[in-house]
Amino acid sequence: MDETSLGLNLDRHRERRTGQAEAVYAPGKTPEQVAVATGELVRHASGAVFVTHATRGQFDAVGEVVPGAVFDELSGLIVAKRAEPGAAAGSVAIVAAGTSDLPVAEEAAQAAEALGLAVDRIVDVGVAGIHRVIEHRDRIEAAGCVVVVAGMEGALPSVVAGLTSRPVIAVPTSVGYGAAFEGLAALLAMLSSCAPGIAVVNIDNGFGAALAAHRILRVAARTRER
Amino acid sequence: MDETSLGLNLDRHRERRTGQAEAVYAPGKTPEQVAVATGELVRHASGAVFVTHATRGQFDAVGEVVPGAVFDELSGLIVAKRAEPGAAAGSVAIVAAGTSDLPVAEEAAQAAEALGLAVDRIVDVGVAGIHRVIEHRDRIEAAGCVVVVAGMEGALPSVVAGLTSRPVIAVPTSVGYGAAFEGLAALLAMLSSCAPGIAVVNIDNGFGAALAAHRILRVAARTRER
Amino acid sequence: MDETSLGLNLDRHRERRTGQAEAVYAPGKTPEQVAVATGELVRHASGAVFVTHATRGQFDAVGEVVPGAVFDELSGLIVAKRAEPGAAAGSVAIVAAGTSDLPVAEEAAQAAEALGLAVDRIVDVGVAGIHRVIEHRDRIEAAGCVVVVAGMEGALPSVVAGLTSRPVIAVPTSVGYGAAFEGLAALLAMLSSCAPGIAVVNIDNGFGAALAAHRILRVAARTRER
Amino acid sequence: MDETSLGLNLDRHRERRTGQAEAVYAPGKTPEQVAVATGELVRHASGAVFVTHATRGQFDAVGEVVPGAVFDELSGLIVAKRAEPGAAAGSVAIVAAGTSDLPVAEEAAQAAEALGLAVDRIVDVGVAGIHRVIEHRDRIEAAGCVVVVAGMEGALPSVVAGLTSRPVIAVPTSVGYGAAFEGLAALLAMLSSCAPGIAVVNIDNGFGAALAAHRILRVAARTRER
Amino acid sequence: MDETSLGLNLDRHRERRTGQAEAVYAPGKTPEQVAVATGELVRHASGAVFVTHATRGQFDAVGEVVPGAVFDELSGLIVAKRAEPGAAAGSVAIVAAGTSDLPVAEEAAQAAEALGLAVDRIVDVGVAGIHRVIEHRDRIEAAGCVVVVAGMEGALPSVVAGLTSRPVIAVPTSVGYGAAFEGLAALLAMLSSCAPGIAVVNIDNGFGAALAAHRILRVAARTRER
Amino acid sequence: MDETSLGLNLDRHRERRTGQAEAVYAPGKTPEQVAVATGELVRHASGAVFVTHATRGQFDAVGEVVPGAVFDELSGLIVAKRAEPGAAAGSVAIVAAGTSDLPVAEEAAQAAEALGLAVDRIVDVGVAGIHRVIEHRDRIEAAGCVVVVAGMEGALPSVVAGLTSRPVIAVPTSVGYGAAFEGLAALLAMLSSCAPGIAVVNIDNGFGAALAAHRILRVAARTRER
Amino acid sequence: MDETSLGLNLDRHRERRTGQAEAVYAPGKTPEQVAVATGELVRHASGAVFVTHATRGQFDAVGEVVPGAVFDELSGLIVAKRAEPGAAAGSVAIVAAGTSDLPVAEEAAQAAEALGLAVDRIVDVGVAGIHRVIEHRDRIEAAGCVVVVAGMEGALPSVVAGLTSRPVIAVPTSVGYGAAFEGLAALLAMLSSCAPGIAVVNIDNGFGAALAAHRILRVAARTRER
Amino acid sequence: MDETSLGLNLDRHRERRTGQAEAVYAPGKTPEQVAVATGELVRHASGAVFVTHATRGQFDAVGEVVPGAVFDELSGLIVAKRAEPGAAAGSVAIVAAGTSDLPVAEEAAQAAEALGLAVDRIVDVGVAGIHRVIEHRDRIEAAGCVVVVAGMEGALPSVVAGLTSRPVIAVPTSVGYGAAFEGLAALLAMLSSCAPGIAVVNIDNGFGAALAAHRILRVAARTRER
Repeated sequence: MDETSLGLNLDRHRERRTGQAEAVYAPGKTPEQVAVATGELVRHASGAVFVTHATRGQFDAVGEVVPGAVFDELSGLIVAKRAEPGAAAGSVAIVAAGTSDLPVAEEAAQAAEALGLAVDRIVDVGVAGIHRVIEHRDRIEAAGCVVVVAGMEGALPSVVAGLTSRPVIAVPTSVGYGAAFEGLAALLAMLSSCAPGIAVVNIDNGFGAALAAHRILRVAARTRER
Repeated sequence: MDETSLGLNLDRHRERRTGQAEAVYAPGKTPEQVAVATGELVRHASGAVFVTHATRGQFDAVGEVVPGAVFDELSGLIVAKRAEPGAAAGSVAIVAAGTSDLPVAEEAAQAAEALGLAVDRIVDVGVAGIHRVIEHRDRIEAAGCVVVVAGMEGALPSVVAGLTSRPVIAVPTSVGYGAAFEGLAALLAMLSSCAPGIAVVNIDNGFGAALAAHRILRVAARTRER
Repeated sequence: MDETSLGLNLDRHRERRTGQAEAVYAPGKTPEQVAVATGELVRHASGAVFVTHATRGQFDAVGEVVPGAVFDELSGLIVAKRAEPGAAAGSVAIVAAGTSDLPVAEEAAQAAEALGLAVDRIVDVGVAGIHRVIEHRDRIEAAGCVVVVAGMEGALPSVVAGLTSRPVIAVPTSVGYGAAFEGLAALLAMLSSCAPGIAVVNIDNGFGAALAAHRILRVAARTRER
Repeated sequence: MDETSLGLNLDRHRERRTGQAEAVYAPGKTPEQVAVATGELVRHASGAVFVTHATRGQFDAVGEVVPGAVFDELSGLIVAKRAEPGAAAGSVAIVAAGTSDLPVAEEAAQAAEALGLAVDRIVDVGVAGIHRVIEHRDRIEAAGCVVVVAGMEGALPSVVAGLTSRPVIAVPTSVGYGAAFEGLAALLAMLSSCAPGIAVVNIDNGFGAALAAHRILRVAARTRER
Repeated sequence: MDETSLGLNLDRHRERRTGQAEAVYAPGKTPEQVAVATGELVRHASGAVFVTHATRGQFDAVGEVVPGAVFDELSGLIVAKRAEPGAAAGSVAIVAAGTSDLPVAEEAAQAAEALGLAVDRIVDVGVAGIHRVIEHRDRIEAAGCVVVVAGMEGALPSVVAGLTSRPVIAVPTSVGYGAAFEGLAALLAMLSSCAPGIAVVNIDNGFGAALAAHRILRVAARTRER
Repeated sequence: MDETSLGLNLDRHRERRTGQAEAVYAPGKTPEQVAVATGELVRHASGAVFVTHATRGQFDAVGEVVPGAVFDELSGLIVAKRAEPGAAAGSVAIVAAGTSDLPVAEEAAQAAEALGLAVDRIVDVGVAGIHRVIEHRDRIEAAGCVVVVAGMEGALPSVVAGLTSRPVIAVPTSVGYGAAFEGLAALLAMLSSCAPGIAVVNIDNGFGAALAAHRILRVAARTRER
Repeated sequence: MDETSLGLNLDRHRERRTGQAEAVYAPGKTPEQVAVATGELVRHASGAVFVTHATRGQFDAVGEVVPGAVFDELSGLIVAKRAEPGAAAGSVAIVAAGTSDLPVAEEAAQAAEALGLAVDRIVDVGVAGIHRVIEHRDRIEAAGCVVVVAGMEGALPSVVAGLTSRPVIAVPTSVGYGAAFEGLAALLAMLSSCAPGIAVVNIDNGFGAALAAHRILRVAARTRER
Repeated sequence: MDETSLGLNLDRHRERRTGQAEAVYAPGKTPEQVAVATGELVRHASGAVFVTHATRGQFDAVGEVVPGAVFDELSGLIVAKRAEPGAAAGSVAIVAAGTSDLPVAEEAAQAAEALGLAVDRIVDVGVAGIHRVIEHRDRIEAAGCVVVVAGMEGALPSVVAGLTSRPVIAVPTSVGYGAAFEGLAALLAMLSSCAPGIAVVNIDNGFGAALAAHRILRVAARTRER
């Protein structure tokens, strides 16, 4: 079946306008819809192409259309196409509060790498052992941008933003139970941070954090190119 | 008017059962009701007697019945009677994240002092400048119990609980705006803390934290007496 | 695989700072991650080591690394290491409103026992038959600290706090339906208690209540030692 | 101005159908609208007529049309007409947890009395001093119906329902702060009560509780008449 | 195992105090706990004994201890013992808005019948076809008490309360989707009803409505007996 | 000052695209901003021009620029320009549940009239006296479209939609207290209505309902013109 | 079994009053209840008959009673009877923001077609590629009414309402995760739209949107017939 | 009084660590506390110093200590010290949906200018007149970073992010009423945006958006300097 009969209307110029090709949000789509959309986007994109929140079945369908596609089962991220080598637009430090936050942190890391960013992973540095994040202060400052991933009380971004001059993108996760309310506690905490200048993305949205980092680092990259 | 006709039915034996006299919650009561209740409780209590969330008008009425009563305008706390000198049951560190949290921290501090506790005030040590709380680690550990007061993202109790072995009572405050939702963000964050063992009281409830600390420290005090 | 490659960064000094080793929060971690983390913590800790909210599969992995580990299937608590005998730091009364609250009460009780506390279990004493809790008043007062576990309307901590002079830690549970909203009704009720001095932990967080009790009772224990 | 031009369309037969005349909800109405509506209802009703949540200004307008109307400033209840003497349909016990709940309890009591019910007021018997309500058990059982008014954690109805065989109508009040969320904590607690058979009305709705009690007691009254 | 070792502490005098034996809330209990508790209550009760929200497995365990127990699979209600014949305390009309509300309405009906009440079922009379409820006005008025069960917008109790003089107990159900929020829309609507005098029980709590009706109708029954 | 320096960027072609000129939302704007915007829109519009939620001060400023502007103090609606006579696009019935809902109903009615619609006002027909709305069934059916305004439990639209074949636009109002939650109860109820086909606007948004009715009735009007 | 014994009380005159036969809401009903209700409604209706949110099992039961019934598995819509050919009452444009919104858009489209409306499907035109909706402006304006279906941030209706003069019915969908809160974000956004005149139906309620469109377009159709 | 006795503990090294001096959050502080804190920070900072959410009274106190301080009455922002001339770190486009959003947009703009950024203001370009934002596409792309300010449905950031390659910081505002819930609708919408890569700050937090933009643009600025 072709694109229109499948209920697809791809935004082929998104990459030209925004520097990032349209991403395919997989939930609610058939494997065929996901695969056709991804195949078309890969054909037209010059940079990275992603499918988010995919299932194994949707990935299998994509794999037939885009042979080199890679799947991260924990986050559901499919990297269907990577930025060309040498496109490195900068580096991002991805800081995760706990090991349970790794699926979200990995979604961010793998998306960032596919976008051509260098990634420095700093994990399991929750605020109850605050020295763990302090001792990585220089690594964080060395990156062009920081993504901080945390569930439960979501306190880590406030601490990090007080330690570095870098842009801080905070990702609340749904890790926790009870009053964590599926990430709401972390989300509200990050939005209410006493450290001004933190910008927040949706709960569990590692992918969105990577794209925000990419937009940020390209500003510097273009400056460099001039 | 007498107690019954004023709609009062005081629990005169509360102090004997719990070690703490009944407190008068002022909102919704007439100045006369507050004053009569407070006067009666002062007459029967051997230890401290409090009125909470009082207005200046209610305090004026209390002052006529209980001449030595003291009023903290910012928190609305009236100390109508203090524990006897020498009754010191231990010491509490009261740690406040920001200067804006002081009214709540002071409610806790003044209630604790009236209960006979020694208070060590450590203020304006928010997590965006994390060294400020770390450098007071010994003062915190020196106290028998810690009350941590914080609004906005409410992250400070998690950091403190990771630094000390002392019981940590967390008080969320309504400091903040927008997604802080009048203290809800801080409350949920404290309840969801990655540092297990934190116990939380109501938003802006410095008074309750002081009473919890008093209960905790008396366990040790009685042990000492034996 | 080693610790770092598994995304672990254990806080080995947590026990030295806080008297309680880092606990492993199992959800979102692979069995291997849980097992390696637990094994490392057991090796370094002098006192109790816990895993919370674990599945049977995660326990099986832990069991291979830490042979004596014990699993409570209802609450998901793994006791990987116990405090040394003779380390008794005091006693805690664990009061549960209903039989349905037992899994949470048992999480608290088993964690407390592993920490070296003596536990007195008082169960099924909900407020609709209020004499049941009143008749246990002396047992409650005899403990150094009280943990009160209740779902539905969460009224029991208010009643208990009015009967005893002991520190009261309230644990709301998700027992109930409809307007109980998975423990929210009990949580809000406990935070809003008319009995000042109650401190509250997260919904279903029996483990956190045990750790709070342990911190409280050590204050007295150290006093005793002097 | 006449009724229609004032935007009024009174339900004159309500009393015939339900035994209770239409009540005038004052907020959002002009004093003139309130006065004309009340005057008309008084003219047609054989029993009690009420205005709820009225302001002093609205009462003044009513007073000119219905000279004997009585105003309770705290609750805003206007009793514009009372049931005829001898219409006593039974008795209701109105139990209030705290003195701060009195405005709501009085709205219930005065409405009940105007409807011809005998009222027994039992106030300031909160659950932190549980003996206070237990010692009134016989008075409660002696009434035909019980209205229990409580704010904060809203625990009193559960205790009362476990002590009496009488119908229990629970009224949550907005007394409290922080996590009491303007009466939400008490409302959810009462709806989630472990004591089945409690029926709940809106927050601060003493008036509705009185009308529910009146409906309940008339069932018995009619039985008696046969 | 005996009662205590199973974590049970039955309130055997509940029936004497309240006229209704303690009910067993099944969720979170083992089949053995449910069965032992039910058997004990049946042995001591003179009237009806219930288990609520039970599973088939829990019922099977009860069936071995109480042979005549009856199970309503849709609502999970077990009637373990019925009131004695001739104990009829009155009649209740159970009015359900839609056929989808039947499981909740049946829980109410079967509990009421087991308590000795006569039940008149009036179903599928939602407000979008308002004549359906109006035409049953006389049947409703003929009962001593009305239970109105409705999900979605929960409008039916307001209409019914305007048609009858009988006590109205409203039961919101979780029928609906989206903004119905699992019964929250119906619950808030019923609490906010423009028809004063409606009393509301928890979402899906047909059982509680039956017990409330039983309390109400016994007031009249006792009057009759005199 | 001119438009740009005042932070205005009017959408002068809105009316050409949508048939309705841009409306000025007054809150947060200075009187000067409101007046300049309104003046410009009046100059360019061929049909009605509105300002919503205005204060008296903002109206005074508008009045200097647009002499014939009319102000409805209760709703804050300013009609700055009316549709030309003879532009009648149809008729709308505006049905309000209670007299307290009149400010919102009048905002709808006055906006509809300014747009050239004929308005039939049917007020104070709440569902507790359901005959009141049934007896107006023919008037409702005679209109081309129905706007139903209701606060509290918001039940009226469900009843009306079951009585008429006309499009039903439901407007929840903030009339009520407690669990009405400022209109939330009515909003959720209307969205969850058992009568499919009801479309809902924002709480208290009588203006939006009028504009929706205008869009609906123009479909028919244009059909007529052909 | 007959209708009454199945707990059914069909509103056979609904179609005569409202122009739309009663719809069967399937959840909570047995297959037999759904089938008998549908069969009866098909027998009495002159126009379309629907079952909503049905399962495959419920459809199978309907299929035995109504052989020509058609099932849309994704939305659960059963079209049991269609409007007669030639009954075309107008045309509706159904605009969906994303391919993931298709199940809801198709529920709307298939219901609209069964009601005799012509449907123009415009899909995958989300606001991040805003040209996609702008370029379909004429198709939208050519329809008599627009249904706009969108999840996530629910922005599309605001854009569409600014481009067309047609009535706009907005359908929020539960597409999204985290802060989308199962459609709540889209629902609140649509209700708060800066484009006045948008009317909103329940989350995922494509069926209700179709019925609203049908009511709207019949106003014009009847005008035409005159 | 000195700093400590006022409850202040300034983080003088914040600027060295993060490139931005500590900001003073004014609510809950006395004028003296605000003034002393601001004076100290001005003395130690090399760059900009801010007070947020200040009142006129607090500004007056600051003015005595820091003569050149400037106050924006609408947002409460005090610029106590500006970055040195020539420190221009880049340019930011500040895009506001409506004129009512100007106070928040101005807080962002004035903070950005004080930090040395060039600001391009693009206001009143809401999505109901979507051409207004499209026609400014080049101005937006010309900036290094975009701040998008919107209340009500908060749709503008999604549209902007689809038009530009620049980093997009979204600021929800509390403009709106009813279901806008004081900015919650806009906040949830922005977090749920279909345009990945948007980062969000707190409701009405124009100041935080400016600081985030400053962090972002300095990455490029430093790159330039090399």
